[in-house]
Amino acid sequence: MIDLRSDTVTKPSEAMRKAAYEAEVGDDVYGEDPAVNELEETVADLLGKEAALFVPSGTQGNQIAVLSHCNPGNEIILEEESHIFLYEGAATSIFAGVQTRTLKGQRGAICPEGLAAAIRKDDIHFPETGLICLENTHNKAGGAVIPIENMMVIAQIAREHRIPIHLDGARLFNASVASGISVAKYAQLTDTVQVCLSKGLGAPVGSVLAGSELFINKARKWRKRLGGGMRQAGILAAPGLVALRENIERLADDHENAKLLADGLAEIDGIEILNKVETNIVLADVQGTGMTADAYVQLLKEQQVLANAFGPYSVRFVTHYDVGKGAIKKALAVASSLSKQPN
Amino acid sequence: MIDLRSDTVTKPSEAMRKAAYEAEVGDDVYGEDPAVNELEETVADLLGKEAALFVPSGTQGNQIAVLSHCNPGNEIILEEESHIFLYEGAATSIFAGVQTRTLKGQRGAICPEGLAAAIRKDDIHFPETGLICLENTHNKAGGAVIPIENMMVIAQIAREHRIPIHLDGARLFNASVASGISVAKYAQLTDTVQVCLSKGLGAPVGSVLAGSELFINKARKWRKRLGGGMRQAGILAAPGLVALRENIERLADDHENAKLLADGLAEIDGIEILNKVETNIVLADVQGTGMTADAYVQLLKEQQVLANAFGPYSVRFVTHYDVGKGAIKKALAVASSLSKQPN
Amino acid sequence: MIDLRSDTVTKPSEAMRKAAYEAEVGDDVYGEDPAVNELEETVADLLGKEAALFVPSGTQGNQIAVLSHCNPGNEIILEEESHIFLYEGAATSIFAGVQTRTLKGQRGAICPEGLAAAIRKDDIHFPETGLICLENTHNKAGGAVIPIENMMVIAQIAREHRIPIHLDGARLFNASVASGISVAKYAQLTDTVQVCLSKGLGAPVGSVLAGSELFINKARKWRKRLGGGMRQAGILAAPGLVALRENIERLADDHENAKLLADGLAEIDGIEILNKVETNIVLADVQGTGMTADAYVQLLKEQQVLANAFGPYSVRFVTHYDVGKGAIKKALAVASSLSKQPN
Amino acid sequence: MIDLRSDTVTKPSEAMRKAAYEAEVGDDVYGEDPAVNELEETVADLLGKEAALFVPSGTQGNQIAVLSHCNPGNEIILEEESHIFLYEGAATSIFAGVQTRTLKGQRGAICPEGLAAAIRKDDIHFPETGLICLENTHNKAGGAVIPIENMMVIAQIAREHRIPIHLDGARLFNASVASGISVAKYAQLTDTVQVCLSKGLGAPVGSVLAGSELFINKARKWRKRLGGGMRQAGILAAPGLVALRENIERLADDHENAKLLADGLAEIDGIEILNKVETNIVLADVQGTGMTADAYVQLLKEQQVLANAFGPYSVRFVTHYDVGKGAIKKALAVASSLSKQPN
Ligand SMILES: [Ca+2]
Ligand SMILES: [Ca+2]
Ligand SMILES: [Ca+2]
Ligand SMILES: [Ca+2]
Ligand SMILES: [Ca+2]
Ligand SMILES: [Ca+2]
Repeated sequence: MIDLRSDTVTKPSEAMRKAAYEAEVGDDVYGEDPAVNELEETVADLLGKEAALFVPSGTQGNQIAVLSHCNPGNEIILEEESHIFLYEGAATSIFAGVQTRTLKGQRGAICPEGLAAAIRKDDIHFPETGLICLENTHNKAGGAVIPIENMMVIAQIAREHRIPIHLDGARLFNASVASGISVAKYAQLTDTVQVCLSKGLGAPVGSVLAGSELFINKARKWRKRLGGGMRQAGILAAPGLVALRENIERLADDHENAKLLADGLAEIDGIEILNKVETNIVLADVQGTGMTADAYVQLLKEQQVLANAFGPYSVRFVTHYDVGKGAIKKALAVASSLSKQPN
Repeated sequence: MIDLRSDTVTKPSEAMRKAAYEAEVGDDVYGEDPAVNELEETVADLLGKEAALFVPSGTQGNQIAVLSHCNPGNEIILEEESHIFLYEGAATSIFAGVQTRTLKGQRGAICPEGLAAAIRKDDIHFPETGLICLENTHNKAGGAVIPIENMMVIAQIAREHRIPIHLDGARLFNASVASGISVAKYAQLTDTVQVCLSKGLGAPVGSVLAGSELFINKARKWRKRLGGGMRQAGILAAPGLVALRENIERLADDHENAKLLADGLAEIDGIEILNKVETNIVLADVQGTGMTADAYVQLLKEQQVLANAFGPYSVRFVTHYDVGKGAIKKALAVASSLSKQPN
Repeated sequence: MIDLRSDTVTKPSEAMRKAAYEAEVGDDVYGEDPAVNELEETVADLLGKEAALFVPSGTQGNQIAVLSHCNPGNEIILEEESHIFLYEGAATSIFAGVQTRTLKGQRGAICPEGLAAAIRKDDIHFPETGLICLENTHNKAGGAVIPIENMMVIAQIAREHRIPIHLDGARLFNASVASGISVAKYAQLTDTVQVCLSKGLGAPVGSVLAGSELFINKARKWRKRLGGGMRQAGILAAPGLVALRENIERLADDHENAKLLADGLAEIDGIEILNKVETNIVLADVQGTGMTADAYVQLLKEQQVLANAFGPYSVRFVTHYDVGKGAIKKALAVASSLSKQPN
Repeated sequence: MIDLRSDTVTKPSEAMRKAAYEAEVGDDVYGEDPAVNELEETVADLLGKEAALFVPSGTQGNQIAVLSHCNPGNEIILEEESHIFLYEGAATSIFAGVQTRTLKGQRGAICPEGLAAAIRKDDIHFPETGLICLENTHNKAGGAVIPIENMMVIAQIAREHRIPIHLDGARLFNASVASGISVAKYAQLTDTVQVCLSKGLGAPVGSVLAGSELFINKARKWRKRLGGGMRQAGILAAPGLVALRENIERLADDHENAKLLADGLAEIDGIEILNKVETNIVLADVQGTGMTADAYVQLLKEQQVLANAFGPYSVRFVTHYDVGKGAIKKALAVASSLSKQPN
């Protein structure tokens, strides 16, 4: 199987497994797990934040951020195809009681003027704008890197209105490797950041949420309420540390493979590439093949290639370290053969 | 004062006050207030619904509808400038735990294709689409009448997906009078409807929510939780009955006055009319006067004319029965004089 | 019918109806209703608070208090048979996201030591104690007056822990008339108070919530979200003012009638009085008659006397101004005749 | 250090670490992790339920149960010192919007008559009783085994009222080993069960929630919303399987050690044992030593013995597989020496 459905499918490397095996652990609910503590400090340092918190998933990291920043009746502003809005089961409204205010982005980037206009004035009829959420890279926009200039203007607006910013940086390391801008530079424009260890970095489980000490103290309690306080979590944190040590720079290979895949797909009859491929995601429109995305993905699967239907006619391919250049070429051969078949 | 801020400012007529004075009352929490019962039956009949519930405000009627139709984690679809989304303090997310999914409308009317595309598929990442909310007339679109053809297509889509529709009909009687289509015809396309008595109809307080018996039974309990269960509420219901009896047809005068006002304003230097005036709302862009909406409204006020700033440069005027043709002409004279002054 | 089910069934007097008829009204959502403003100021003064807010019901007043004082994840401490806990549909948990911590009271009065022990320490596992709720008089304890000494000790504990107190004073005027202690003296021991106008005071609809200016500003927004913002609410506020002016002192008659009723019932075979009758509520155990409360209440009803089943064998009678001494005597005659019948 | 604070501090055994190292993993959000699937099937079988779900913590298992069983506005009945009520940060009220109704238990066991009386009738003022929660063994009652006879009567009442039961079985294996009654027998009396792998069983992280297929499908979505969906979770599930295979029967040793500890402590001046020691928890009252629990625990710590203050004067000791008989004897020697010191 060549699994291009998501970079979440990455499996832990030998080094990560060994790290799990050898992890010095303790009870993290008591704050005594050495591997977790080291991981949290490492990520806080990388992101230039005072403190960090290990959480079981990116979704939980994002939810904790909203719960810690907001009060019920607040409105949060986010891009209309952001992960928090599309893929987290309306959790921000259920748990934090906030209303989602979505803005249409350009390749995932929110227009600063639109943002400024969307911030609520003080009025008895209005929710209070409590948080701005950004996502970099932006999944639904095809792994698009949000330009730092865009983030800088937004940060300026947020500061003026004293509204915090949370960055869903599930794939922030991809953005950093693609742009050459450090994750700390991105992070410094936002109050809090969530980064995933289990996507391109390949760790088995977990994300890290970073921010001020005060924020992380609040976050720790929300994690407990959400049931994300784990005991000997070092068994996950230790491979997470390996992921950070060994797998950041190599994301460049994934990006190169994604371009290779996109270029190959572009040459196939009936397939159009929908996104500018900057990182590890390729979005392909397959309507020209006469198939829906669902049908196309099914045919690929029969040939041992996995991808995800992402819209009625769009298919998402995600490259990662379990799929090398050779596998990409095989996948292209399969895609090529599908277009040659009479439907 | 010529008060054109809203039709909510209408004051009860002599007949309404007399009805309040004479109202036969009882304890409505026990279901024993005769005037309330008569009002609820009257509105249910008018709207062609099985049952109805008197509530203290349109906001509460809408909130009860969302609470009664939805479960936490649902997503509700609504127009991006609808009252429920813009002006109810994020209450649907706080109280019902639902996520708001907004669609850009055309004069308040949601595009059916966009609606169909926004309905969620069954997926562990997705909220379930639990309700579609419409608003007719549409306040923010300038009292626009949502075409019944648009509502028919949406009703068809909703039925196919088994998603209920709630109609925020705060000004549904205005839509009906303007279009010549009965409120029952509109209501039959939706599962539940909320109509206001205290706007153009002139009753002092209250709205009515209508739907199936089953729905109203659920709604009654949600009303209790929200603190909308009132005791001798006949004192409000009796004038509400007068409002329904005496003030529906005369909404045509308000619509005529709104057109008169719009035509007059359109001729004033620096003012542009933003909406097609179908009912009792006029939206004017005052940017050409060199003033912001706030400044313009302030100047009007100094001349005894009240209106509401509705955007940075847009001003809303609402006609109603406490403002006759003469008052409209005076208001126009004031507006005209403002444009002649050097700023 | 002799209606002893509740003092909520009181119907507005001629003076109240006239006040409604003549009320000078305005749009209270704009803060422009003179009668509402006068009512709010009057109650704030009576209670010695900075500000007050008119709300459609006691339930809404209590809910707004919890929403304004607390954050989600707080715990509120309240007596285990308090109205907020027993009779408000779990609304504090749904809307404010707070957990209810109940303490068993003595005639409705919480034991201060138990209260102190129930206040949570700072710990990642614990909700934060966010509010203490008292109820005076205490409905379920049979209209018991909570001794001011008890409230003073509780206020001291609350102050030490910086926890606010909300007083559900739906029948605080009854407590005051019975004890001779002013409502202001009670109110000064608590941060916020809700008093009902539509119970013993006889107004058709409404309660008032009082507290600091800052609190009432928050409360006003929560009222809007709950749908309690009403337009020409003066039509209710004006009779409310009459109620305050004319009906406080006469609560003594209700208390006297309650004693008369209790003394009479006590002499009837098979009936035991359960409460020390201090105000306008009588709780009777009817088990000795061989009937359940439901059956007993049904028999009374057939003889034109209404009361409420309050437990499997307990029946609640509430006196109020629509039931005079003569009616009490008739009710006693009916009760007496029931016990003489062979079942 | 002799760590008797909790059985959560157990560290993974060599066999568990090896299992993590070798775990065959997949993406569990796609349902493709073989170790997770095996663990879930194993636990479902053990408990005699149709299906099961791996979750990061017991708290999350409990919260998911409440979210899946209940609607907002429901009331849940639970013992007044249960973990869900005392130690989960009011999460059931925040997230599920349910009100907690607590009943005083006898050694953690709820009185069936009290339970029956607490179930709400159908009334517009009342929350609907939506769930009964039991806890076995009961932590705060000192690891007390809830008698199966008590559970049988409760199950009967619940069935009659069609109210589901959730069992917080964080330490259900301790109950089973102590009583000789299988976990399946306990589980069959309840609709859903949560069991912890990371307490006495020694797995590094995780709990399992079991119930019907329909329930687990709902639960899976709530887990996603709470952020408990983990990717290559096999790294945790594999040691969990080892825990189930190797560590259930040996809980008897922990129970024996707890008795040894209790007997020893009982002989020390100033210490009283508060609970009947049936499993692995000992509660000691240290007031007779002249110290508070906090002070006593601090002194123990200086002598390398860890325990938890559990009340103003009560100290909790929990035995587990990282503390053998020798360590217990050392702990006793320390405790003995403390009582001999002049304070
Ligand atoms: Ca992975
Ligand atoms: Ca009005
Ligand atoms: Ca009016
Ligand atoms: Ca009344
Ligand atoms: Ca362990
Ligand atoms: Ca453990």
